[in-house]
Amino acid sequence: MQDDAPREIEALIDLMARLPGLGPRSARRAVLTLLKKRGQLMAPLAQAMANVALNARDCVICGNIGTADRCAICADDRRAIPEICVVEDVADLWAMERAGVFKGRYHVLGGTLSALDGIGPEDLRIPHLAARVRDEGVAEIILALNATVDGQTTAHYIADSLSGAGVAITSLAQGVPIGGELDYLDDGTIGAALRARKRF
Amino acid sequence: MQDDAPREIEALIDLMARLPGLGPRSARRAVLTLLKKRGQLMAPLAQAMANVALNARDCVICGNIGTADRCAICADDRRAIPEICVVEDVADLWAMERAGVFKGRYHVLGGTLSALDGIGPEDLRIPHLAARVRDEGVAEIILALNATVDGQTTAHYIADSLSGAGVAITSLAQGVPIGGELDYLDDGTIGAALRARKRF
Repeated sequence: MQDDAPREIEALIDLMARLPGLGPRSARRAVLTLLKKRGQLMAPLAQAMANVALNARDCVICGNIGTADRCAICADDRRAIPEICVVEDVADLWAMERAGVFKGRYHVLGGTLSALDGIGPEDLRIPHLAARVRDEGVAEIILALNATVDGQTTAHYIADSLSGAGVAITSLAQGVPIGGELDYLDDGTIGAALRARKRF
Repeated sequence: MQDDAPREIEALIDLMARLPGLGPRSARRAVLTLLKKRGQLMAPLAQAMANVALNARDCVICGNIGTADRCAICADDRRAIPEICVVEDVADLWAMERAGVFKGRYHVLGGTLSALDGIGPEDLRIPHLAARVRDEGVAEIILALNATVDGQTTAHYIADSLSGAGVAITSLAQGVPIGGELDYLDDGTIGAALRARKRF
């Protein structure tokens, strides 16, 4: 029996199916859409992807992804305030930037500590963070790690390892999200919000 | 405020978000995965996509997508039996091929008739099908169109237009799908299965 699609197209479907959110079936559907829009969508997408694959590089200072050795944020002098926001991932950095409230620079760890997966401090960019605190005259480290077990373990490790560095260490507040309904919140969040209650 | 991702990456996210099954959010997640796997996944995917965009072409005979003027099925002499299976779309042709039970050649209409969307017979490959019936000595046309209103309207139109061509016109049986439970089937399917009942 012969293949249901030509070999080149099967190869493309297999690669697409490795993207998060796409399985074999939806990858096939996506490729069919691309095949129908070869000129308007498929060729520009291939070009954009090749362009980014060629030009994207990790910022040597913070680990953000940009198109130069220093990312746009590290290259921006207006953001040279003595605060560094530590995030797990570039996705988290983008989320902070969308919120548009932090005016300083970032440090992207590239993951969290995980004993199970054998990820230690030297696998992340934690030693690099200590060097930046020493060299850049940082006054405050804001830990914006995810409120997961691994994220909080990593936050505690960083706070411990920087405890003698003479820098203020803060973390994002935990509590009821804007628009959140108590009925739908987990017990842990309600407990954290109660403990951190403020005068009204 | 500056962009949350560099311009080239934003452009890639915008293009990815135009694929079916991906929205702006999941496109961003897919692009982040690509950025993390620039060498292993992003560069090969861009290459495969450019390759297909450059080489894929519609078969001049049946409308299937291949890498030559005649698709692999039309070029295969073993499939030169006097039966043509008519499908709406290349996806349906692939589904038929996966089932592996049809040994003849196909005719891909490229959609269905639709008065609402202004799609008439000349917008599909229906005139081309009539020419094939005349020229190729076809004995049977198997209508494998979707069991939707538009699909069945199109099937009736094709059957009518070929009624004087001296060719047998059949369509896929309708009934209970393999593994189907009556309790979950719609009334129309149960009705069709009852009307088409067979001696056990």
